[in-house]
Parts: sequence; C-alpha cells; structure tokens
Amino acid sequence: MKIARVRGNVVSTINHPFFDGHRLLVCDVLDDSGAVGEKYVIAVDTVEAGPGDTVLLLDEGTSSRQIFGIASGPIRTTIVGIVDDWSSAAGESS
Amino acid sequence: MKIARVRGNVVSTINHPFFDGHRLLVCDVLDDSGAVGEKYVIAVDTVEAGPGDTVLLLDEGTSSRQIFGIASGPIRTTIVGIVDDWSSAAGESS
Amino acid sequence: MKIARVRGNVVSTINHPFFDGHRLLVCDVLDDSGAVGEKYVIAVDTVEAGPGDTVLLLDEGTSSRQIFGIASGPIRTTIVGIVDDWSSAAGESS
Amino acid sequence: MKIARVRGNVVSTINHPFFDGHRLLVCDVLDDSGAVGEKYVIAVDTVEAGPGDTVLLLDEGTSSRQIFGIASGPIRTTIVGIVDDWSSAAGESS
Amino acid sequence: MKIARVRGNVVSTINHPFFDGHRLLVCDVLDDSGAVGEKYVIAVDTVEAGPGDTVLLLDEGTSSRQIFGIASGPIRTTIVGIVDDWSSAAGESS
Repeated sequence: MKIARVRGNVVSTINHPFFDGHRLLVCDVLDDSGAVGEKYVIAVDTVEAGPGDTVLLLDEGTSSRQIFGIASGPIRTTIVGIVDDWSSAAGESS
Repeated sequence: MKIARVRGNVVSTINHPFFDGHRLLVCDVLDDSGAVGEKYVIAVDTVEAGPGDTVLLLDEGTSSRQIFGIASGPIRTTIVGIVDDWSSAAGESS
Repeated sequence: MKIARVRGNVVSTINHPFFDGHRLLVCDVLDDSGAVGEKYVIAVDTVEAGPGDTVLLLDEGTSSRQIFGIASGPIRTTIVGIVDDWSSAAGESS
Repeated sequence: MKIARVRGNVVSTINHPFFDGHRLLVCDVLDDSGAVGEKYVIAVDTVEAGPGDTVLLLDEGTSSRQIFGIASGPIRTTIVGIVDDWSSAAGESS
Repeated sequence: MKIARVRGNVVSTINHPFFDGHRLLVCDVLDDSGAVGEKYVIAVDTVEAGPGDTVLLLDEGTSSRQIFGIASGPIRTTIVGIVDDWSSAAGESS
C-alpha cells in the first residue's frame, strides 16, 4: 500500500458498465519525502476523496472487488482511506 | 490502472486458441504529463479501440477473464475504457 | 519478500472499517547493503513491531488476509516477522 | 503481456517435479523500439519456441496453470504465442 | 521467474508460526549478464539450496503455498530449482 495525493478525475464515455456508478481518480503516488513523484495511478474512490486529499491506495484486485461487494469487476486499484498524517522522511509527522 | 495510447497491433499465427477471436493491441503507457513514455504493454481489446485512442488499462488476470465471461484464459492486461479527458500533470484537463 | 525498517505510523480517520483495529506502519524497504533506500511501503502490523525495528515484509493480499483469519479485507502488505540478523551485502551477518 | 525474444534455455537437475516435462527458456524482454533490453525472464514454453523467436509472454500464475490444465504447479511466466509482426516504436510494422 | 544466487540466511525469532520449520534465504537476483545485481529477495527454500548456489526463483504466493501442500501461509517467493547452467548474456552457456 502507498500514500498518494488526488490530482483530478478521468472522463470516459465508452467503457465497462462497472464504471458507470464509480468515480475514477488520477492519483500522484507520494515519494519517500512526502512529495509528488513521477508516478501516477488511476484508482476507484471509496471514501469520497477529492483533489488535494492525501489518500491510502490499495493495489490489489481481489481486495478491491470485496470492498464493492461484487464477485467480479474490472478493478485493481482503490482508495481505501484519507490520510490525516504520516511519517514521511521529510519529518512532517511523528 | 494506467492511461495508455494505442500504437498498433500484434500479428501472431501460432498461439493459444483464446487469441483467435480477440485483438491484441500494442499500447504505450502515458507518463505523468500525458506523454508517451518508454513503457509499452500488450493488451486485449474490449471497447473497439484503435490506433491513437487514449485508453484505460487494467492489468489483472482475474478481472480480465471475468470481462470475457470465461473461467480460464491466457489474459492479464485488458483495455476497459476509452478516455475522453483526464487530469495529466501537463494541465490538459481539470 | 523484502527486509524493511519501521519508520512510523499512518493516521487516518476516514477509512475502510478493517483498519479500525489494525495499525498501519510506514516501512522503509532496505536495499542490498542493508541501508534505507528510497522506497517505502505502508504495511499492517502482526508482530507488535515499532519504529526502528528491522522486519520481514510480505507483499501479497491472499497471504495477508489468511494471517488475519478473514476471507475478505483491504490488505496487501503485512509485517510477518522481526529480523534479528540477515546477510546484507554490507557483511553485517553470515 | 510483453514481447520478448528467446535467448536459450535453463539446465536444472534438482528442481520441482513439474519441470521434468517442461522446457524452461531464457527470454529477453524487448523494449519499446523492439530491441533487446536489459531485462530477462525465465518462462515455460507452450508453443515450441526456440532461440531467436519473437514471442508473447504472459506473466500470471493462474493463467499459466490453466494453460497446462493443472490446478497447482510452480509456474508464473509462460510463452503463449509466436509473434510474426508487431508495431514497435522503430516502425518495423503497421 | 528469475535466476538468483543464494547469499545467506535470515535470523528471525519473532515471526509467523509458518517460518518455524522453513529456512528463509537472502537471494541476489542475477542480471542479464549473469552477475549479481542490486536487487535481493527473501525466499523460502524447497531444494536444500545453500550460499553460492544459482537457483530458480518463483515469485507467486499461490504456487508457493501449493508447493508446501498448504492452503494458507505467509509465503510469496520460493526457490524451486538449482540451476546448473543457463544462457546468460555473458555467454556462459549455450
């Protein structure tokens, strides 16, 4: 699991039916020092996160499907928490 | 999940029977700024995507098999949506 | 599996119910020489590890859920042991 | 899935019984331009591929076991097709 | 699957009960030319491998649990064979 910051969303009109009722967010994975790095990932929201929020990312399909209570669905990465504080190497926390 | 751009296709005559009825596309994974990076991946199409299309890539076998409604099959990466707009770091979207 | 050093914890008030009873720790993955590298990962604790401890990290969802005796749950990375000694390239061990 | 070129084989006398009847091939993963990069992977052959062949690599255990029709077995990476042509960035194809 | 060389072992007194009867080895993943690179991984031994041995590494939890004949257990990476010879880019083999 990694810490990321929500950047914005994805607009897609032609896609798998699962995505009709779920928001896809563009998330910047934070590096060791808590800064936005060069990696991004597209995740399905479960905690009403919005742009600028620091979030906990889970990158596993089975877990993600269980969260939505479905046996099947095209999901791999999910936002599972909003992070208030964490021990980044930059020392922002304890 | 990642955003990619379709580059072209793969021609393969000797392969697993599953691939007879499904198109394999070469996709360039887009980097943080929305530009074509150095990574590519071979994906099975599900949304009639073509060269130049910006697409949503799902990289998990279980999800991919569920999309095709099969219990088994040699798939891991699937194109699950066509992206109209997304929040790249280059600021092309909101 | 990798060797890591616990750096600190993650404070999250809005999250998946699973996390209410489990501690999330920020772990620095150790590099080849046993030094803290640039990679971190967020892991669920199972051995009462604390900051500064050298630990064994397991990065697989199915294993992690089995450890907690649950069929479903948003976990992928778990601390499964405290490491007393290991053969790093720096020669700290045999 | 990735495109690779077969380099040669692996000789192993002490190993898991599964490998007794299956060939292990050393494959160089091709980069974006279709050239041999610095990454290799050991894969189980399913299409009678040989050194110099350009192949389609599937890197997922569940798929790989299904191809061999077995419920269990120590496989993760499998060669699932021989590639005649593909759209590499070097423009070798259309 | 990858080729690696066994460097040494891991000493851990506080850990998941599974590890009581199984040796954990520190393995250096070999690069393209057959040399020890900068990546290591901690693997469970199944073939009585020792320091200096060249081994075949399987990095998948489901396969690894099947090898030990258990339905659950905290394993992801396993040594499944001792390699006598392989086609490294350095040309040590045929």
